[in-house]
Formats: sequence, C-alpha cells, structure tokens
Amino acid sequence: MADSAISPTRSQNYPEWYQEVIKAADLAENSPVRGSMVIKPNGYGIWENMQRVLDGKFKDTGHVNAYFPLLIPLSFLEKEAEHVEGFAKECAVVTHHRLKPGADGKLRPDPQSALEEPLIIRPTSETIIGHMYAKWVQSYRDLPILMNQWCNVMRWEMRTRIFLRTAEFLWQEGHTVHATAAEAVEETLRMLDVYADFAENYMAVPVIKGMKTPDERFPGAVDTYTIEAMMQDKKALQAGTSHFLGQNFAKASGIKFLTQEGKEEIAYTTSWGVSTRLIGGLIMTHSDDNGLVVPPKLAPLHVVILPIYRTEEERPAVLEYVRSLEKELRAQSFDGQSVKVKVDDRDMRGGDKAWQAIKQGIPLRVEVGPRDMAQNAVFVGRRDKGPKEKSGMPRAQFVADVAKILQEIQDTLFQRAKSFRDQNIQKIDSLKDFETFFAHDDDKGISKAGGFALVHWNPKAVGHEILAKLKVTPRCIPLEGEKESGKCIFTGEPSEKRVIFAKAY
Amino acid sequence: MADSAISPTRSQNYPEWYQEVIKAADLAENSPVRGSMVIKPNGYGIWENMQRVLDGKFKDTGHVNAYFPLLIPLSFLEKEAEHVEGFAKECAVVTHHRLKPGADGKLRPDPQSALEEPLIIRPTSETIIGHMYAKWVQSYRDLPILMNQWCNVMRWEMRTRIFLRTAEFLWQEGHTVHATAAEAVEETLRMLDVYADFAENYMAVPVIKGMKTPDERFPGAVDTYTIEAMMQDKKALQAGTSHFLGQNFAKASGIKFLTQEGKEEIAYTTSWGVSTRLIGGLIMTHSDDNGLVVPPKLAPLHVVILPIYRTEEERPAVLEYVRSLEKELRAQSFDGQSVKVKVDDRDMRGGDKAWQAIKQGIPLRVEVGPRDMAQNAVFVGRRDKGPKEKSGMPRAQFVADVAKILQEIQDTLFQRAKSFRDQNIQKIDSLKDFETFFAHDDDKGISKAGGFALVHWNPKAVGHEILAKLKVTPRCIPLEGEKESGKCIFTGEPSEKRVIFAKAY
Repeated sequence: MADSAISPTRSQNYPEWYQEVIKAADLAENSPVRGSMVIKPNGYGIWENMQRVLDGKFKDTGHVNAYFPLLIPLSFLEKEAEHVEGFAKECAVVTHHRLKPGADGKLRPDPQSALEEPLIIRPTSETIIGHMYAKWVQSYRDLPILMNQWCNVMRWEMRTRIFLRTAEFLWQEGHTVHATAAEAVEETLRMLDVYADFAENYMAVPVIKGMKTPDERFPGAVDTYTIEAMMQDKKALQAGTSHFLGQNFAKASGIKFLTQEGKEEIAYTTSWGVSTRLIGGLIMTHSDDNGLVVPPKLAPLHVVILPIYRTEEERPAVLEYVRSLEKELRAQSFDGQSVKVKVDDRDMRGGDKAWQAIKQGIPLRVEVGPRDMAQNAVFVGRRDKGPKEKSGMPRAQFVADVAKILQEIQDTLFQRAKSFRDQNIQKIDSLKDFETFFAHDDDKGISKAGGFALVHWNPKAVGHEILAKLKVTPRCIPLEGEKESGKCIFTGEPSEKRVIFAKAY
Repeated sequence: MADSAISPTRSQNYPEWYQEVIKAADLAENSPVRGSMVIKPNGYGIWENMQRVLDGKFKDTGHVNAYFPLLIPLSFLEKEAEHVEGFAKECAVVTHHRLKPGADGKLRPDPQSALEEPLIIRPTSETIIGHMYAKWVQSYRDLPILMNQWCNVMRWEMRTRIFLRTAEFLWQEGHTVHATAAEAVEETLRMLDVYADFAENYMAVPVIKGMKTPDERFPGAVDTYTIEAMMQDKKALQAGTSHFLGQNFAKASGIKFLTQEGKEEIAYTTSWGVSTRLIGGLIMTHSDDNGLVVPPKLAPLHVVILPIYRTEEERPAVLEYVRSLEKELRAQSFDGQSVKVKVDDRDMRGGDKAWQAIKQGIPLRVEVGPRDMAQNAVFVGRRDKGPKEKSGMPRAQFVADVAKILQEIQDTLFQRAKSFRDQNIQKIDSLKDFETFFAHDDDKGISKAGGFALVHWNPKAVGHEILAKLKVTPRCIPLEGEKESGKCIFTGEPSEKRVIFAKAY
C-alpha cells in the first residue's frame, strides 16, 4: 500500500490529482462528444443534493420554476450588443433538421432541410426568456417576475476540464424582472447571499462576496456580483454569479410596463446562476491525497457499514446485526433528512472496501465483526481524520450521536478550508511584491507563493500586460472589505478599496 | 357570465377546448422556436410533482440517476439498423461551432468551424448510453446497471401540440443492463408497473397495460410495453412505454461481459420513459368546461383561501383570520407532504379570484368573510363539484378533514375517469361493426361513436389500409386480458387474444 490512495498527490501534480480523485470516486468521465462529460451516479448524487437545497432556498425567497426552449434563434443573440460579443463566438449551431443517406449509404444532413434561420443551443437564456417576458409584462401588477430554470447549457470551450469547464453543463439560471432599479439590485444581492449561504453552510466552502471589476462582468450586465472561493492550490474559483442587468436586456427585448400612474417604463432585470462547476469546487476544496471528501450535508451517502467476518458460519449473524444497525441509523435525522446508510456486503476484501469508501468520500465508515457484536460496540472511521484513525464506541452511543458527528465533520471541513484560505490572503502594496507573490506558481503542484492578493488598483486599462504574463485576474472588489485609502500599485493613483487578485479556474 | 368558463366547450370543439384550458390555467405556451414550448410555472409545478413521485419510485426499485451528453455523434445513430430508420429522419443537426459576422454585419455560421462529424440533439439516448455502458461493463459483477436520466430531448415533429407532441420535451429515460433475458424482461415489466401505479394512483388516470404489436414497437426493441389511457374524446394516449431491447442495442454498442464461468456473453438491455406528454394526458382526462382539474396528489397548490371583505375596515381582521387558517392547514399533511395553501389577497373582485382558482384547477377554494369568522366557519368549494356548489363547515372540522377531502377528490377523479373509460370499451367482432364504431368520429367534438375496440386481429400486414382510412391504430395487446378464442376480423384466421384499437394522440 502506497502512502496515499491517490497518485499523484496534491503537491506532486495538482491538476492530475484532481482528475485521479474524480476517477477514484467514480464521479464522472469524458464522453466521446468533445467537451461533454458523463456525470456518473456518484457525481450526480452530489448534484441532486445541491439542487434540492438550492431549489428550496429559491422557493423560500419567492421564486418559481419554469422551462424555456433549448434552442435560440440566431437573431435573438444579436439584440444586446455586448451580449453578442460575449456569447456568439463559440456555440453549437443547428443548421438542419433532417438526415438523409448519401450515395455511400452514410447519413448526412439533408440539404433540403436547411433551416432558414440557424438556431443555437443556449449558452444562457437571457434573450429567449426576455422575449417571453416582454409578452407577459404589461403593467406594474405583473411585476416582479421571479423565475428560475434548471437546465443544460452549452458553450463551445476550447480547453475543458471535468466539472470546471465543459462544453455542456447543468445549471440553474434565475431571471427576474422588477419595476425599479433598487428592487432589482436588492434581488441581485439577495441571491448572492443565497449562494454564499449555500457555499459556506452546505458545501463547507468559505467564499468572499464581491463585485466584479468592469472587464470581468457578464456581457451586458451593469454590475456582476460573485462569490469567490480558494482551492487548495490557492487558485480562485468563481463559484456563483448574480447580475444586475439594469435596463439593458429589457430594452433589447422590449420589456415595458405601465406604472400605477399609467406611464410606460422600461423594466429592470437580473439573472443569477450556479452550475455543475460547483462539484469541481467542492472536490478541490476538501479532497485529500486519499481521494474525495464530501461535506455530509451534500453527501449522497452518510454512513457505509462494513460487516467483518472470517468464516461463512459467522456471516449470517454479522449481517443480521448490521442490518438492524442500518435500520436504527436510518431512523436518525441529519439536516432535516433521514441519515443515508448502506451496508456493503459485497464479496470483497474488507480492506479494499474500506479504501473504496475513503476514496469515495463517505463521511463515516463503520466496521462490525463478531467481537464488536459481543461487546455491542462499533468501530468508526471519520473521513475528516486519517484513514487508520478509528475509534470504538458503544453501538447505542453511535446511533444516538450520528447526526452530531456528521455535523462535526461538516464544521471541521469548513474551518479547515477557512483557515487555509485566510492564511493565503495577503495585502500587497507594491508591484514588485505583487510580481513576487505570483511568480513562483508553476500551474502544477502547490506553489510556495500565491494565493489571494489584496491590492489597491485603479480598474482602468492598466497593468493588463503584467496580469496576462502572471496569469492573474482581478477576482472581485469584496463587499465586506473595509474602506482604506491607498495607491494603485500600477498607476499610483489614489484608491479607496482593495481588489482581490488571483490566478483562477 | 357564460355557462362555462372555457369556450369552446369539450363537445363544441375538443382540440380547441384543450388549448383554451392550457391558456386559462396559464400552464404553457408556444415559443418563437418552432415546435418548442415554454412551460410556465403553473405547468412546471405539475411536472415537478410528477418528477418527485416518479424519482422516488425509481429509487425505491434500485435505480440511480446519471447524466449523459445532449449531443450524439451522427455515426452512433447508424449502429442499430431499425433505430436509425426510426429516429434519424427528423432531428436537429449541429454542424458548426462558431458564428461570425458576414459582410452585412449579421451573424452566420463560420464555415471554418464546420464539424468533421455532425452531431445531433438526442431524440433518445440508447446509443450514447450504450457506448458508455460498453466501457463500464466487464464482468457479471458489474451487472445489473440500473440508471435513469432526467433531461430534455428533441424530435423534429411536423405537427405539434403543446405537451402532447412538441419538438423539444422533458422526460426521464431509464437504461438498464442485465446478464440474462429473463432479468431484463422482469425489469421491463417492473417499470411498466411503476408507470401504471403512478398513472392510476397519482395522475388518477386509469390505464391498460399491454404489449405493442410489432409495427408499433420502439425502433430496435424486441418488445415494447405500454400503458394506454383514454381521453375524454375517447382517443387513446400512450402514457408511458417500457422496452425489452434484447441483445440488439448491446450488440450494436458492444456491451459484453464475462460470466462467472469466464465466458464472454452479450448483455440484455431495457429502456423506459415518460415525458411532459403526461401533463397533456392529465389535462385531457380530468378537465371540464370550466378549465383545468388537477388530482390533489400532483397539484402545485391544494387550497386557495379567498378573504372576503366589503370595507377597508373589515380587511385587517379578515386577513389575520385567514393567515392563521393558512398556518393551521399547512400543519396538516396529505400524501406525505405538507398541505399547500395560499391566501389570495390580491386587490381584485372575489368572483374573479374564485373563477381563476377554478380555471387553474386548484382542488379546494375556501372563502372566509366577517360573518363566517363570527361563526368560526368556512365556505368550501371543491373542484370536483360544480362551481356554485359550496358548503359551509366549522373551521376546525375543515382543518381536521382537509387531507381526507383531498383524498376524496383524488378518488372521485379516478372513479369518474374509470367509469368513462369502461363505458367506452367495446368488444367488436366484425369488420363492419369495427368501421361503424370508428366512422363517426370527426376529430373535433366528442363523437357519438368510438372509444377502445377490443378486436381479434392477426397482427400481420393486413387491414392497414382500412386502419389508415379510419385513422385507427392497434394500441396494445392487454396483459391482463383473458385468453379467448376468436377470429381475426380482417382475415378470419384464428386468434387467441383481443387487441385494443383506437384513434390515438
């Protein structure tokens, strides 16, 4: 047995470690369709839990779900000038609606079936949803519209990485319409808070809420807000965004309404989304050199029970014992749900089963053999501790405490990620220190330098060459950062707030 | 006020009545993309409930969810000969991955971005899932594979009708792999039972389980099983199908495994699916000339409370009263869920609100005014009864009985649909009677004749001209029909079981 279950380790080669964790936990894999992944049941189970929790939060904040078409007429994309720049470039274009065998018998698009206007697979749905909203909104009585859609979208990415950047991905996109700018901004920030709460209290991923600098905004947005997380290689991951679109898309789509006074006005819109990218962020935040680590609140399985027996004679009694334990554990509830338990009674070596459970990130492993049974005890291994660290405890105590232990693991993961993140945020006040801070990161193993740099910066078009060379981008202007006078490290101009810079996914 | 809220009525023009019910209940509408609908919150709420219930049933029968790519390489479709015949004809073909402005500034597919191999938007996923399964299955230990996918699919339909037949629709597709034919057949029938149970006990739609005749099978299937429902115009709706695919797709995709004895064998597969078409079936089974009727188990909202007051002075006390009633009702549970209640306190005429609730199919309307408050009473209207039929009852009794009343409505809807269906099934033993039975249906209002004809038939290529002329198709060979000797009405050949014929959606 090697020192760790995953090779390479994080420090040896972080990007490859990430791929190996996904493989070892059987979360997803590449498909024969360029840039499109297959999300396997272990990965999809995490997504289902994310959906359940987020959907509940969206409904609690007054939103309803709807479904809009996958295909968007090409001309729709052209309606908002910045939007077309941002999205029209790389997308899947549907040009025909029929296949026909050629002379060689092979199927080809039938030229007779060429579409008058090509359709594109939605990269995001502002334009088509805006078109419908324009029909639905007549008066102030129709506002606000608070809708969300769970769906697939597609962006023809050149360099893809499972979960983090794929051509097709799953997401939710909220689209709302309001009578005033103030209400729309309030909505934008409300949903940013929902995302931050979800990231911290469910994913156990600490995030910084902030506003994007102009160059990093969503194409067509007035303001883009983001939650930024730090991965274990100290790179940033944009985990969710919420956009105040002002009247830009409403103008482009013609979303107008009569006010109470009978005056026609253009509405204000917002949009906000998170995607299966969150699964990548979750993996990179918590996993270790033994594989996946999943926060219990999002784990498809909380407890795996491994029955231990040496002879076939011992088997029935052990199995009966673990089945009753399984039942007792299922009767417990954690985070409003029944504790999810599975007995792994496959015909395999116990050690192999335990390592598989570790690699899959199951929060608790319970081993029970005849000797434990005699003492009414169980042996428990926690995924937030070392793989050899197991503690015996009375069965009844474990059952009574299981929810508490799961919550402890949840809290430990958050605190661990938060300490790491906090240790790797640094205020930097000169261009030289800035370059040194980011220079030693080699895009592979965890570098000695790097992290989040808090820098005074004038977000005009300065320093972009240096940033490009360092592969660093402004991540956000933190909402909660204290005001502080300083000077832009590029121009020396006065600045009132620091911007976070980092290498990013 | 007209006699009914929906015009035309069912008997005046059934197809138009259907569209009007959808519009009045605000369920969905056509989009600017040909054949693609927008599912609005009221319609999507029904789909979410369908998903929740079905997903629970799939999991209870051992299935897990996964996600496979939207796009399928063209060559994959060609692997199974019958499949390509059935699906390759009309589908959305992606040929380019980039747009570029032309000389006129308008965007066009960039010729430089033409794909080497076109991709098609999945009409169903057997081929791509089969490709992945072939990699995942090595030995008998990997079997069975029991996966399901919730997703969107697309078929370029020429004539579309909201929910019933749209180019893009939402569905679930189960795909399983087994070591033996017997196990695969067992799975196929298990899922047919799940669908039938769902249709009858949740949708309140009585269905006949049966096997499709050869011409009506899924392209590439060995056997296709179906559940067939009767709509109020006596036409049949295929509500769900479950396919035993034998080794056809496993051969085409190369899904092979080593048996316990070390012998290589080809696996057996199944697939099964239901779609947003179910919403159409639900509408057409229960709705009436006053609009939508939704069975309580799938209703997004169970109870709407209409506060009645004549003066602004009365308002606060009435609102306070209904808010507390709302809270008490929410604390009740129906079918394992909290009762879903809403107070409609919009500034609108009470009569208009009541009619809106009726048109939207909300199972219970509760009216409360100052006089009711004084008596601690409520006025309750049930959607399964006439719009004027309301009964007063003590508030406490209504709260205590709300779940029982909802269940009564659920049962009434099922019984009503079942009586209608049973009254319109007829054994027919001559070609002349068969032609008479179907001749008077004019495709519009409910015709005097028609329904399900139980007929002895030899499913060879006979009678197809007559069937086409009558617009009648064999729906299925009922699984539960008694064996009965008879003679084919077309050929006079001996037959052992009757086949159901009907006009169908």
